[in-house]
Formats: sequence, structure tokens, C-alpha cells
Amino acid sequence: MAENQSRGLADVVAAATALSDIDGRAGRLFYRGYDIDDLAGAACFEEVACLLQRGSAPDRGELAGYRAELAAGRVLGKLVASSLAEVARQQQPMEALRSLVSLASADDPDKESNEPEPNLRKAARLTAQQPVLVAAYEAARTARPVPEADPGLGLAASFLLQITGHPPSERAAEIFDTCLVLHADHTMNASTFAARVCAATLSDMHSAVVAALGTLKGPLHGGANEQVMRGLEAIRLTSGGDPAEAVTAQVTERLRQGEKIMGFGHRVYRAEDPRAGHLRRLSAELAAASGDDTYYVMSRRMEEVVLAEKGLYPNVDFYAATVYHYLGIPTDLFTPVFSISRMAGWTAHVIEQHADNRLIRPDSEYIGQRGLTWTPLEAR
Amino acid sequence: MAENQSRGLADVVAAATALSDIDGRAGRLFYRGYDIDDLAGAACFEEVACLLQRGSAPDRGELAGYRAELAAGRVLGKLVASSLAEVARQQQPMEALRSLVSLASADDPDKESNEPEPNLRKAARLTAQQPVLVAAYEAARTARPVPEADPGLGLAASFLLQITGHPPSERAAEIFDTCLVLHADHTMNASTFAARVCAATLSDMHSAVVAALGTLKGPLHGGANEQVMRGLEAIRLTSGGDPAEAVTAQVTERLRQGEKIMGFGHRVYRAEDPRAGHLRRLSAELAAASGDDTYYVMSRRMEEVVLAEKGLYPNVDFYAATVYHYLGIPTDLFTPVFSISRMAGWTAHVIEQHADNRLIRPDSEYIGQRGLTWTPLEAR
Repeated sequence: MAENQSRGLADVVAAATALSDIDGRAGRLFYRGYDIDDLAGAACFEEVACLLQRGSAPDRGELAGYRAELAAGRVLGKLVASSLAEVARQQQPMEALRSLVSLASADDPDKESNEPEPNLRKAARLTAQQPVLVAAYEAARTARPVPEADPGLGLAASFLLQITGHPPSERAAEIFDTCLVLHADHTMNASTFAARVCAATLSDMHSAVVAALGTLKGPLHGGANEQVMRGLEAIRLTSGGDPAEAVTAQVTERLRQGEKIMGFGHRVYRAEDPRAGHLRRLSAELAAASGDDTYYVMSRRMEEVVLAEKGLYPNVDFYAATVYHYLGIPTDLFTPVFSISRMAGWTAHVIEQHADNRLIRPDSEYIGQRGLTWTPLEAR
Repeated sequence: MAENQSRGLADVVAAATALSDIDGRAGRLFYRGYDIDDLAGAACFEEVACLLQRGSAPDRGELAGYRAELAAGRVLGKLVASSLAEVARQQQPMEALRSLVSLASADDPDKESNEPEPNLRKAARLTAQQPVLVAAYEAARTARPVPEADPGLGLAASFLLQITGHPPSERAAEIFDTCLVLHADHTMNASTFAARVCAATLSDMHSAVVAALGTLKGPLHGGANEQVMRGLEAIRLTSGGDPAEAVTAQVTERLRQGEKIMGFGHRVYRAEDPRAGHLRRLSAELAAASGDDTYYVMSRRMEEVVLAEKGLYPNVDFYAATVYHYLGIPTDLFTPVFSISRMAGWTAHVIEQHADNRLIRPDSEYIGQRGLTWTPLEAR
């Protein structure tokens, strides 16, 4: 391969950002200079979204203003509302969200502007809208009403209310809020990079976020948390006896056959993904409270086996799966839930890209035939 | 900036491809080893789409089979059909296409598979569908019926029939067909790159193409052809006397003020974009036949001024604008028309990415503050 090339752009710097930073060797993640370990449990998702989109930790007045914007943004646009029932009937969750966010631009008064103020307003609206879209999709496909949004609830609690149909406990809302904080941004991950490639043509924020949603959909990216849960469910279903023993047997066998185990390893981290540690702790807490810790015990065993056999650590997707499961979120909505959080990061990256733009247009290496002569169809 | 970095990934090799190759110094473009100069006017768009998606120039039997697939794909899915009227009423052209292609996956039986055969079928369906979507959108917003697709017509002629409402002359269809050939692929342009970033998470072809459409929408990419025409229209409208003299005066002034003139220069070409030469010739022919060559004469003058003042050559967007204008295509559909052609390349790149995949996940350089301490909200 040519110079200046690295397959998959591994270790190639594609953009400068002040949004997040990873220390892969130490296993640390920072949002605008704050260690994720200090934010988890201490900052709410709204503060983190505001920090990412607006540049600094909001004071009480700023946070109140941002919360008011989010509350006003918890509505479905007319085009989304008129399409929702059929989309929910005919499209899978991430496919549907890609469509619904694309339709949603119709009702955004700022849709055509990439200027700073309209971009900030759109970022808040898109952040507020995403949990409502996921809940409205779930309600539409299960033919039940969406509980009215409670303006007194934060984004995390409001989503749990709307998705499960009952008000969450205070602790469940706190735990889900921490999940949202942990997933909000992660440097130049594939969906964020897709959003920046799109925005760098001076296309608009909705287009960039729709590109990101389609990218997050992939099983090598956002789709991984759902795959983790499906894997645990399949092992438990076929285990017969002790599910943890079944994990050891099946995972060992799959690793020997060279299969990849979803939820382990990360291109950037050499140590444990710091998000995984927080999610492990939250999964343990929810498992204990649920009265059935089977999936947590299975996860711990899987972690031990993969570390022993492959030296790989769990990544953010691994314990997110069981946390979402214990919170009562349907498995096929795990990736949509990821998008609720990452919307904060995507929109912040679009703002940053538009503020100092250059078209992202790489080269390619040509590996095909050369110098062919075109023969007219009649002679072929 | 860090090592391994180039702003906007200029000159960084992001992927290997056997689809197209550019010789920027010589001003040459190749599709799978065939010089675009040999293809323009000699190969029809269906042959080129087949060449790109399937790997070699089709013989007569293969082309007939591909044409039959395209003919079968000239239908709107149920979800698209039920949403079209409202989308056309509430969304702008590229915004609407982004939504409609996202909705279209609902009716594709292969939507969830990235395997070679399903991907080939989807590539043909998406290629067949795109001109029908553009024409159906135009018909819906102007409240007139879409002329029935004529299965005896090629893709180019069929689109002109549906978009203008009357059968095109044989020569108009040939010219538009050549335009489609010239725009079909162009290495790692921004929309194609967005499609590959998306597909590399093992997301599906529809998601990748939706990402590409949102990226093409930007004025630094697909939106440029429309901007060129708007610029010509604005100068003509305000010229008073001789429009060509007005071009000289206004363009010279804008260049002196450091403004960018749309349709000139290209990151990859150091010589003239080979596509521009073909489009100039076709624009001249259509201008002469139309009886009003004003826009062509203005374009020639603009080309002379920008070359003399800045040393920049016209790119593919510059003469495409007047060609589409003379063919009777509404100005705000120029970028959608670009997408009709580029769909061949996007889908071929997704096939290529899925066939030998690696996640595209670059690094970023962190340029923000470090080592901040999080203060609880109460203390802020």
C-alpha cells in the first residue's frame, strides 16, 4: 500500500477537536478536559450535553435555560407525526430513526443555517427530540399511548417513563443518566467521523446526524450492545444447567474457532475502557436489586474467559447491554438508546466542524486494472 | 498539528479501490481502467453502472439482464408512496431525497444483508429508483401526474420524459446519458467517503447511500452545480446591458474581494477536469440548438476571467449547470440529478467496502483544555 496510508485510518489524525480526548494507555476519557471518572455520577446528562455543545460547564442559570430549551424540544414535528405509524410498522428501530430524524428537519425553523446560533438551537432540539422519537417509535409499534412527558423530569427519567410506561425509581433514573453521560462523546468514532465528513461539505446538522445514525447502526459500532445481549440470551437459553459454566464452554470454543466476541477490545484503548468499569458497577447494582443476577454473573464469567484467552478487556458496549436490560429497555432498542446519548456529541462535532471548516476529501489508492481499451457493445 | 495529519485528509490515502482512478496532473479520470474520454459518448450509463457495480464491461446478454433488473426497479415502495406527498410539500429536494431513500429500505427484501448477491441486487434497485424518486418528487410538488415509465427507454431518456413531461429528442437523451456517465464515480469524494465510513461499521447499503445523499447536499460538494446556475442567473438579471460584460465586471470584482467562485478548482486536479471539457462541448451544442446561447456565452467568459485572474480551471459542476438548464431540468433539482448518476458509484463502493472490510476509525488531535476539575453544580 502507498505511503500516508493506514487501513481504516487507524492512528491517522483526521481532525482537531476540543470536545473529547482519550488516553488509550492509561484507559482514560476526557470531555473538554474533565475526566469521565469525575463526571460519572456527579454531572447529569444535561450538564454534559451543554458542556459539549456550548463549550463550558453551565452555571445554574445557563443550565436552567438549556433545560427549558430541551423541554420545548420534546415534541414531534408534523411530518414525523404523520409518518410515525407507518414507519414504526415497516422499519426496524435504527432504520426508523434514520428516517424519522431525516423527516424531522422539515419542522426545524433553523434547518438551512450552519451559523453558530442556529446550530446551537438545533443541537438542543435534536438532543431533546431523540428520546421522544425512540419512545414514540416503541409506543407506535406496540400500539400503546406514549405517557405524556413530565416537564419536571430530566431527560433520563423522562425517557424511562416513556419507554417503560411507568415512572422510574430515583436510582434507576440516576443510573440511566450516568449511562447517557458515559456514551455522550468519544473522539473520532465512526459515526461522529461520518457526521463530520458530511458537515464538512457545509451540509446541514440534520444531514450529518442522519449519516451518523446510519453509521451507528452497524454491528461493528452501535449495534454491538444489542449483539452482546443476544449472545447472553442465546447462551442462557441453550445452557441447560449452569449458565456461567455454559459461558465458559461456549466462549472458549468460539475463541478457538477464531470467532470475535462482541463487546471486547477497542482500537484506541490498550487498558480497560474506563466506561466499562462504571457500567460493570451499575450492572452489578441493578442485577442485585432485580433478584435475578444471572446475566450479570454470565457477563463476569465471559469477561474472565476473554481476558484469560485473548487478553482483551470489555468495552463500553459489554456492560451497557445488561444495564439496559435490567432497566427494562427492549433489546432491539439498545442501539437507539446509544443514539440518545451520542446525539450530544454528534451535534457538538458538527458545531465544531462548521466553526472552522475544511472539506474532508481523502485520496484513495488505485488497485484495479489499467490501460483498458473500451470495446463498443456490438463487438463484445 | 500532529504527525500523520493533513487538514481535511488531503493527500491521505483512506482506502484502496479498483473502481476509479484520477491522474490529477494529466487531467484524466478512469473507471475500472477505462479512460472517461473513451467512455463519454461511447458507453451508455447502464453499461457504466454495470461496469462499476459488477466489475467488468457487460456483454449483450449481461446488459440485457441488468436493464431488466433496472426496469423492475422503477417502482416506488409502499412506504415511499404513502409519504411522498407530504415529504414533497414539506422538504427541499435533497432533504426529501435523503428521507425518501431512507424510507425506501422498508420495501427492499434484501435490506438487512451485506452479502455480495443481495448487495448487487440492491445496487441495481437503488440505481433504478433514484431517477424515479426525483421525478416523483417534482410531480408531487407541482401537483401533476408523473408520465408512466416507458420500459423501452433507457434510464436517461426515461428520466427526461418523467421530469419534463414530454419525450426527449434522441440527441437530448444521448447528451443526458453522457452527463450520467461523466458523474458516475470519482474516487474518494466526500459523499463516497461518507458512504464507505458508514458501510465499514457493517451497516447496510441504504444507510450508506443516505449518508452519501446528505453529504452530497452540501454546497462544497453536490450543491455546487446549483450554485453555478444561480450565479449565472443573478448576473444576467442584474446585467442591464451585455451579460458577458457583466460577468467580467462582477467576477473580477468578487475575485478581488477574495470570494470563491463556485464551479472552479478541484483538490485533486492540477490540469483541467476531463469531465469539464465534455460538458463544455455539450453545453455549446445545446445552447446553439436552443436559440439562446446567453448562459453558455456567459460561462465561457467566466471561465476566461477565472483562469486569467486565478489560474483555476472549471470543474465538473461548472458546465453541468448550463447543460441541465438547457435540458429543461429545474435548477433546484441539479444536485438530485447528480445523485442519480453518483448512485452507481456509491453502491459500487459499498459493495467493495463490504467485500474486504475494516472499520474506518481515525484518530483526532485534542486541542482543548486539560486537567480541569469538575465542580458540582451547587458550587458553580
